[in-house]
Amino acid sequence: MRLVRFTSGNITSFGVLEGEQIRQLAGDPYSEIKESGESFALADVKLLAPVEPKKIVLVGLNFASHAAEIHQETPSEPLIFFKPTSAIVASGEAIVLPHQSKQVEIEAELTVVIGKRANNIAQENVGDYILGYTVANDVTARDIQFADLQWARSKAFDSFCPVGPWIETDFVPDNKRISSTINGETKQDASTSEMVYSPEFLISYISQNFTLEPGDIVLTGSPAGISRVVAGDVVQCSIEGIGTLHSFVK
Amino acid sequence: MRLVRFTSGNITSFGVLEGEQIRQLAGDPYSEIKESGESFALADVKLLAPVEPKKIVLVGLNFASHAAEIHQETPSEPLIFFKPTSAIVASGEAIVLPHQSKQVEIEAELTVVIGKRANNIAQENVGDYILGYTVANDVTARDIQFADLQWARSKAFDSFCPVGPWIETDFVPDNKRISSTINGETKQDASTSEMVYSPEFLISYISQNFTLEPGDIVLTGSPAGISRVVAGDVVQCSIEGIGTLHSFVK
Repeated sequence: MRLVRFTSGNITSFGVLEGEQIRQLAGDPYSEIKESGESFALADVKLLAPVEPKKIVLVGLNFASHAAEIHQETPSEPLIFFKPTSAIVASGEAIVLPHQSKQVEIEAELTVVIGKRANNIAQENVGDYILGYTVANDVTARDIQFADLQWARSKAFDSFCPVGPWIETDFVPDNKRISSTINGETKQDASTSEMVYSPEFLISYISQNFTLEPGDIVLTGSPAGISRVVAGDVVQCSIEGIGTLHSFVK
Repeated sequence: MRLVRFTSGNITSFGVLEGEQIRQLAGDPYSEIKESGESFALADVKLLAPVEPKKIVLVGLNFASHAAEIHQETPSEPLIFFKPTSAIVASGEAIVLPHQSKQVEIEAELTVVIGKRANNIAQENVGDYILGYTVANDVTARDIQFADLQWARSKAFDSFCPVGPWIETDFVPDNKRISSTINGETKQDASTSEMVYSPEFLISYISQNFTLEPGDIVLTGSPAGISRVVAGDVVQCSIEGIGTLHSFVK
């Protein structure tokens, strides 16, 4: 099932997308997925980022290929960091280049959407706490990442977290293609099977360190092929079985 | 004026605390401070953390004395990092020691509460965007801080961000005493005048990097004297002109 968040007139709702139609949900999809009975044509609404998380958790260096290209070793435990929620934009929206950086790069990432408050969850039970999966782009000002002592400001600029276009609830994350293109040219092309830590391991690990809340998202790391973008570029981040997150750069 | 957030029965509200009485606000204090006409005795309510931020921004190494004690140089630009909002607890609540760490330490910090959406604000206009100031404790698992590549997980455990007891709207942050005690023994004792970057400079700087939203908080750094806590300890973090944030450790 594809879950979207959309706006039409003064309505903002979640919905179930099937073909070109959206069946509106009565509330959010976290406690239960209950339809309102209303439906909207996809063409008549604006899709929003499919989540409004309380936090964005990122996992660094989870593909050996990417760790190598930025001259880092893969860590002995998952490497956690955060982006502020003010960085979120929807599919179809702009990545705005900040004047502080000369080297803004894209990172396509498989993204877990939490469905239920998760605290200290064993790996075998993690499925009960995952609503579904989406695509995100961990946009990074690479020059600032290595000038600053922490990976925080470099990844926090407004619009540096495109997320979408929807949440796929039936996705199984093993051996799926993860890729990105700039102006149609392939930049990243890998398989989720290359991850150092699986999404299920990561959600269990994170929940043992701090509580994940409904709507929170976990970006599970980017493969090699990160590439600089410039104004005018068109970016697509795709995950097989979910869909394509579209952005343009300005 | 002291702004509190409190709960009584099934009511959760902001209010103005004067002596032992709380005058309830009709909404949140961000757009305007409008009283509902109802009032509550302080003794009859439970005070909550005075904010529900969308993000918690922290400034590292903003006191030369603290940078030196953890063997870091003060940075040439403010050092920004984040805590997740799931770490927030109120004054009077517990700091819960996680089994992952053998060295949990306290850091008393002057904390700015944002009142208005702040994007690219000049330093001379920052006052218009600040609702007031409160006290926070940047609780840190010091052993994990230096084992992990990033300062994220070590500061993100649930209960690792005590905030409160209230927002003081009339506070002026120059040359105020900032201190902490464990079981009544003074551990940190410094002046806000020792900060490398002033709160006003920091809010302007941060707003040039990413947008601050109403209720967001900025922890402006901790002075020397950080100290380990163990179960049973009683912790107080105080800022002259605001008040004292109380915690106990379990």
